[in-house]
Amino acid sequence: MQQTKIILPETEMPTHWYNVVADLKNPPAPPMGPDGKPLDPAMMQAIFCDPIIEQEMSAQRWVKIPDQVREIYQQWRPTPLFRAHRLEQALGTPAKIYYKYEGISPAGSHKLNSAIPQAYYNKQAGITRLTTETGAGQWGSSLSLAGQMFGIDVRIYMVKISYQQKPFRRSMMETWGGEVLASPTNLTKTGRKILAANPDNPGSLGIAISEAVEEAASRADTRYSLGSVLNHVLLHQTIIGLEAQKQFAMVGDYPDMIFAPCGGGSNFGGVAFPFFADEAAGGKHVRLVAVEPSSCPSLTRGHYAYDFGDSVGFTPMMLQYTLGHDFMPPGIHAGGLRYHGASSLVSQMYHEKLIEAVAVPQVATFAAGVQFARAEGIIPAPESNHAIRACIDEALRCKESGEAKTLFFNLSGHGHFDMVSYDKYLSGNLEDYDYPQAEIDAALERLPKVKA
Amino acid sequence: MQQTKIILPETEMPTHWYNVVADLKNPPAPPMGPDGKPLDPAMMQAIFCDPIIEQEMSAQRWVKIPDQVREIYQQWRPTPLFRAHRLEQALGTPAKIYYKYEGISPAGSHKLNSAIPQAYYNKQAGITRLTTETGAGQWGSSLSLAGQMFGIDVRIYMVKISYQQKPFRRSMMETWGGEVLASPTNLTKTGRKILAANPDNPGSLGIAISEAVEEAASRADTRYSLGSVLNHVLLHQTIIGLEAQKQFAMVGDYPDMIFAPCGGGSNFGGVAFPFFADEAAGGKHVRLVAVEPSSCPSLTRGHYAYDFGDSVGFTPMMLQYTLGHDFMPPGIHAGGLRYHGASSLVSQMYHEKLIEAVAVPQVATFAAGVQFARAEGIIPAPESNHAIRACIDEALRCKESGEAKTLFFNLSGHGHFDMVSYDKYLSGNLEDYDYPQAEIDAALERLPKVKA
Repeated sequence: MQQTKIILPETEMPTHWYNVVADLKNPPAPPMGPDGKPLDPAMMQAIFCDPIIEQEMSAQRWVKIPDQVREIYQQWRPTPLFRAHRLEQALGTPAKIYYKYEGISPAGSHKLNSAIPQAYYNKQAGITRLTTETGAGQWGSSLSLAGQMFGIDVRIYMVKISYQQKPFRRSMMETWGGEVLASPTNLTKTGRKILAANPDNPGSLGIAISEAVEEAASRADTRYSLGSVLNHVLLHQTIIGLEAQKQFAMVGDYPDMIFAPCGGGSNFGGVAFPFFADEAAGGKHVRLVAVEPSSCPSLTRGHYAYDFGDSVGFTPMMLQYTLGHDFMPPGIHAGGLRYHGASSLVSQMYHEKLIEAVAVPQVATFAAGVQFARAEGIIPAPESNHAIRACIDEALRCKESGEAKTLFFNLSGHGHFDMVSYDKYLSGNLEDYDYPQAEIDAALERLPKVKA
Repeated sequence: MQQTKIILPETEMPTHWYNVVADLKNPPAPPMGPDGKPLDPAMMQAIFCDPIIEQEMSAQRWVKIPDQVREIYQQWRPTPLFRAHRLEQALGTPAKIYYKYEGISPAGSHKLNSAIPQAYYNKQAGITRLTTETGAGQWGSSLSLAGQMFGIDVRIYMVKISYQQKPFRRSMMETWGGEVLASPTNLTKTGRKILAANPDNPGSLGIAISEAVEEAASRADTRYSLGSVLNHVLLHQTIIGLEAQKQFAMVGDYPDMIFAPCGGGSNFGGVAFPFFADEAAGGKHVRLVAVEPSSCPSLTRGHYAYDFGDSVGFTPMMLQYTLGHDFMPPGIHAGGLRYHGASSLVSQMYHEKLIEAVAVPQVATFAAGVQFARAEGIIPAPESNHAIRACIDEALRCKESGEAKTLFFNLSGHGHFDMVSYDKYLSGNLEDYDYPQAEIDAALERLPKVKA
């Protein structure tokens, strides 16, 4: 019988996360205050607890995973690595295709990998409440569950349009005890200002971040928690790639190319960075490909500049590839990729040509997702469909060239809460969005004037 | 670190299913034709392919799992056995609680365990189309995926009210290539007759079975596929209990009591029967508890009599605990348990006092499900919540008595497509239904007059 599932024994689960900062030739550009001056540490402390700030600033290569975090990880980790025999056969490609499946986590995606340690460190620091934002709902679900496990109250500002369109993600967060609000709310200055201008504002991830940060900064018992973008979040996600390396070793294979969806960057960084570590330690070069939506192409068409993390300008500024903090992404179904910027670390590595990026249009990603589901069974999240599209495209190139490359992608989550988008695709009602160059150029004019 | 997840190596996956018929003192009562006379074999052959009929009639103790079926099983099997440390702690019980998690199958429940072999055997027999019915959608999803994997077209008659209320389950079936119709349809005599009487008939599982059977019987290329009740379905599901036995052996424990939801019976039979085999071979007695909804209490309050499997009277009659084939179960959210009867095998074992049964009301099952989700992370299917309720009740009895019993339940699926019911529970809008004795007595009068 063909081996399709590569299971890493629990005893082999990594004990440390990997910090890519240690292997970069240039140190990361420092964050700047929202006023464009060097960041005031007190501002960070009003938003994040000290252990999180320490991780965010760390250049230490290996960071120990706390025992209590590993114990909870073990409920679903190590996650399986699959060899996609049936998909390879359906494509008729000589390429070998592998995928790591993060959708078996109780929250249904890789997001729980960072939610658990974030709740843990905040609990250690005596914090009793966390605020956060969520778009598609994957991050909000994960933090609700993590908060429940550590006895921390979680308030989630959910983008209003998603709150209305995705009632089941909201029920999921509430089942785990999270409090979910439709953002913009009238509980924050930001929300009230936006609602005064337009009571029907549908919300955006940028607005929800502004509200969550504003509330956290105003209460001593409360901190803010972010599900992507920042260094410590990418650090926590490296458990994906670290496990995958051991699983590849079990079958005596190693990837030539790795594909992961890229919005904020935690998905991509989580699976790709550990392979960069191998290369930095003298191993072979693996092509690391960040896959983004062509309607929200921060890496492939954005500017490399200092910009805010939110849409209002509350957060510190980071050097990053950005479409402009006030960019309003079109309503694609991969809600987790609807973000104006990208992680500083991912941006720096792209800028230094250490990684690659490609943009793919929405309808083609769903075509790939359905093809995958029919061959392999699992229905992927719309975000994951981006990686699948890019991987299938490469597998088809291999079919033409006859190359037997080893391809690997991160199946970051299942699509059980995204069936409405599959429905639209199957009935021919899904759209692609063009992103006009004039808008990109105009956004450049609105970027904060801070020198990199 | 505490061990919470007990993983059976792939090489240890059972090679045979277990047939409980071999260990029953009395042979199963024969099925009767819908006319009350001994069943005409040609009638069976119009509905089922020969290998399935052979399995249905078999008394062979161990039945080999075909290699191709095992290969597909291996995509998600062996499923994990969990020790529920966090739930035990939340309950403050000295009892040890274990659960087997079938929700990691790509279709999200245990139903795929039988869908795969049913598609396989029909393919072997040269069948190119399958019809079936679905209520909540778990079975329809599983058969869609199984059909896709073996290149068999699948048409699903979905109870109309579910079709309207659960569009995402429908999208899931369509993503896997299944054709989904809202039953009653105007494609069958049964459907046309029902629609003529009432164009707004919301449908029922019994009606959908009638339509699916009628179509299969009328086409040479088509057979019918059932997701529960019948012997061969329960046979396929025994892989759950067989794996669990090996997993208990790995940690040196063994259950005192086993709980499983019971509608048609495949969930219960799948997990419980292998432990009955142990006892039949001289092992210790395990209390096997079938848990049913108090609003659809076929075992605990029904009659033991010959009755039809569908609501119209198309199918053969089986000796079973039944509420009457025309019983219309109230609209509880555990759609998989809304069935008027129970499997003949489960019924016989209950009649012979080899197993136990208990009925639990809906609201209490959701209270148990939410408590479980907050402790263990996984959000259970409403069907599974029945087993959780009964298990928690026993764990609380152990807390009073100080007994450290080993309790085990089957977490048959996740609740990702059932969040609307959690929403109702959390907002206090979920109802319990009483099942009046007068209705049970009246149903007895309408049972077909066939002597057991």
